[in-house]
Amino acid sequence: MSQPLRLGIAGLGTVGIGLLHVLRQQRALLEARTGREIVVSAVSARSRDKDRGISLSGYAWEDDPVALAKRDDVDIFVELMGGEDGPAKDATEAALAAGKDVVTANKAMLAMHGQALAETAEAAGHVIRYEAAVAGGIPVIKSLSEGLAGNEITRVMGVMNGSCNYILTRMEDAGLPYAEVFAEADGLGYLEADPTLDVGGIDAAHKLAILSALAFGVRVDFAGIELEGIDRVSIDDIRAAADMGYKIKLLGVAQMTGRGLEQRMQPCLVPDTSPLGQLSGGTNMIVLEGDAVGQIVLRGAGAGAGPTASAVMADICDIARGHRGPVFGQPATSLASPSPALSQRPAPYYLRMALLDKPGALAKVAAVLGEAGVSIDRMRQYAHADDSAPVLIVTHKTTRTDLDHALAAMGKTGVVNGDPVALRIEEL
Amino acid sequence: MSQPLRLGIAGLGTVGIGLLHVLRQQRALLEARTGREIVVSAVSARSRDKDRGISLSGYAWEDDPVALAKRDDVDIFVELMGGEDGPAKDATEAALAAGKDVVTANKAMLAMHGQALAETAEAAGHVIRYEAAVAGGIPVIKSLSEGLAGNEITRVMGVMNGSCNYILTRMEDAGLPYAEVFAEADGLGYLEADPTLDVGGIDAAHKLAILSALAFGVRVDFAGIELEGIDRVSIDDIRAAADMGYKIKLLGVAQMTGRGLEQRMQPCLVPDTSPLGQLSGGTNMIVLEGDAVGQIVLRGAGAGAGPTASAVMADICDIARGHRGPVFGQPATSLASPSPALSQRPAPYYLRMALLDKPGALAKVAAVLGEAGVSIDRMRQYAHADDSAPVLIVTHKTTRTDLDHALAAMGKTGVVNGDPVALRIEEL
Repeated sequence: MSQPLRLGIAGLGTVGIGLLHVLRQQRALLEARTGREIVVSAVSARSRDKDRGISLSGYAWEDDPVALAKRDDVDIFVELMGGEDGPAKDATEAALAAGKDVVTANKAMLAMHGQALAETAEAAGHVIRYEAAVAGGIPVIKSLSEGLAGNEITRVMGVMNGSCNYILTRMEDAGLPYAEVFAEADGLGYLEADPTLDVGGIDAAHKLAILSALAFGVRVDFAGIELEGIDRVSIDDIRAAADMGYKIKLLGVAQMTGRGLEQRMQPCLVPDTSPLGQLSGGTNMIVLEGDAVGQIVLRGAGAGAGPTASAVMADICDIARGHRGPVFGQPATSLASPSPALSQRPAPYYLRMALLDKPGALAKVAAVLGEAGVSIDRMRQYAHADDSAPVLIVTHKTTRTDLDHALAAMGKTGVVNGDPVALRIEEL
Repeated sequence: MSQPLRLGIAGLGTVGIGLLHVLRQQRALLEARTGREIVVSAVSARSRDKDRGISLSGYAWEDDPVALAKRDDVDIFVELMGGEDGPAKDATEAALAAGKDVVTANKAMLAMHGQALAETAEAAGHVIRYEAAVAGGIPVIKSLSEGLAGNEITRVMGVMNGSCNYILTRMEDAGLPYAEVFAEADGLGYLEADPTLDVGGIDAAHKLAILSALAFGVRVDFAGIELEGIDRVSIDDIRAAADMGYKIKLLGVAQMTGRGLEQRMQPCLVPDTSPLGQLSGGTNMIVLEGDAVGQIVLRGAGAGAGPTASAVMADICDIARGHRGPVFGQPATSLASPSPALSQRPAPYYLRMALLDKPGALAKVAAVLGEAGVSIDRMRQYAHADDSAPVLIVTHKTTRTDLDHALAAMGKTGVVNGDPVALRIEEL
């Protein structure tokens, strides 16, 4: 039997406490599976006195996570504080400098500083593992970097923020407008302290940037993501999309194209019969596509104490078993700098507009689409309400540029009330 | 850069050739990801002269897989021949004896001889990896043994034989009887040379036995599986189940109970809106449930050259990266001997019977169910055809023993034509 593996855990929120519970309950199981005893040497959090429903008396306490990270009796620094800068980053850097391995759930830190941290860790022969940073309990980092290691990855996509999916699903199920469901979710504690991280798509985009790096062998490039949140998704669009056989999801898509790396996190339509379309509530789903394996779909809880602790434990077990390796699947210094590509790949689009009650109105709309080279797959006009009628159009595949030309021309026809809504339809 | 990692590949069918293609096409990628060059030293197959659409001139040839397994220029013996005994087992044993690691796609060999092979390998410090043995390209072995290593696994289930799922889906879609779809699938080459392996559930049960060992820390126990194939599933039941909101799947379920290890591979009903219910065609789906992570669902191609080669490559990459470990997730000598438990866990059941056109017939059926302690959740009687009427019953949860008592008593009522069909409904 080897020496015990000693953890220092910084951050005792839901996940940190969940991790302590797993370590206590599964002590024997973990030792059988890894061949090592896994122990907690010390912990750190903002408040020592807070009642967390679990005794901390067996662990040394550090007020300062940096001090925790440097302790001689710590082999792995487990960073569960969160935040892209500040204490999390300081302590992670201190841990690496002090010769520790790092396990973290911190998607923001990796999305913003992943390259530098990876270079530091690899130069010193240490590892940074972060299964919990993306899609909670779903072993997606492992599946992508190890399970599909023989594949050239062609596309990665998915629903990576459970709160957004909860809001969109709830809007549809209850027929409620965005603002009302947002307030409800916020009241239930489903959203981050800064809810923009969730509904602005930022949290999900952090995760996408990490998956892109692993999938395509590039440096993490959060800034290169086309980003749009769900705050402008209306209940009208959710209903209209359902009418046409689609669901609206905050969908992340990353794909290497001839022009560079395309990364998008935006509300998209997906067929309601597809695995992504059928995903309701706070669940996450990741779709991985490789040249050999085809399409793999992974589904599970994207957040919560248990699922996140499960992912953190997977990383700890890997290190206990001696499984090491570069942070992003290949040496950080060998990762290419991606050139961001705007999504010019043709796709079908969903359009919704309010057509004024004028003779020839629909003909004018059809004409400007045709002139811009955008052809119509399906169209529905509903009964007039007031002085305008809702019109839904699903186009054939078109580029965003052609579509934007059509939309600009449409504004000048004088038959469309306000700006049309245009959402991409992602094919699965 | 380390020494090249040298493969000896035995078996050049679809998967073996698929693997050679991946190794050639992704040479640079694999080296970047593993830090080692991966080369093929030698190959072996039944016929040297067969046209496989790929040149083998760069590789040494061995007629005898045992000779291949022993070669000095082979680090990993890649076993892609199949078959539980014979050349596959001989060559695997020879490889371990000669100090090689083994990568195999052979579910039958592992289900029958996994324990002995694991003990041999571990005593000598070698590894046997077998991601391709279960669910093709889906990284389920890795997800279970590594990704969920922090969990006590509570249940493993899934659709693990694409051919059976294809047959059942096709029966429903085309409204065709079993025999006709079986002949069609056989003609299309979808079935094993001995189709009983597929439709008898044996191939799927091999996979379930392997997953059970990993999930519950027990020796592989194929003999302990309650096994029933799909050959008695009728189009009538598929239609009737659909009417009641269910799909019929050949479902494997493994669960540790107070009475021992319950392992079943049998046709079951699942809700048609569940992920398993929505799985159509030749795709596989595995559901993993753990105390911390909750439910994880993995979906992908369960067979085919590309997906299987992808799984074989994952194992090779792991070994190239120095990721080693016991065959079944913990040392083979520490695996418990499971006591097989018949599935006495209560479950709802689906019953279909032909009720004779006699006064009080339905009352008699209801009475014998009630006397046996089986209560009815839903019941439908359809219009009479000839002298009997189809009756469908969904019971509340009951044990198989109580249900069997009810079915025996039902036979004596004189109002039921033939034997009722009884299928378990698996709750998700």
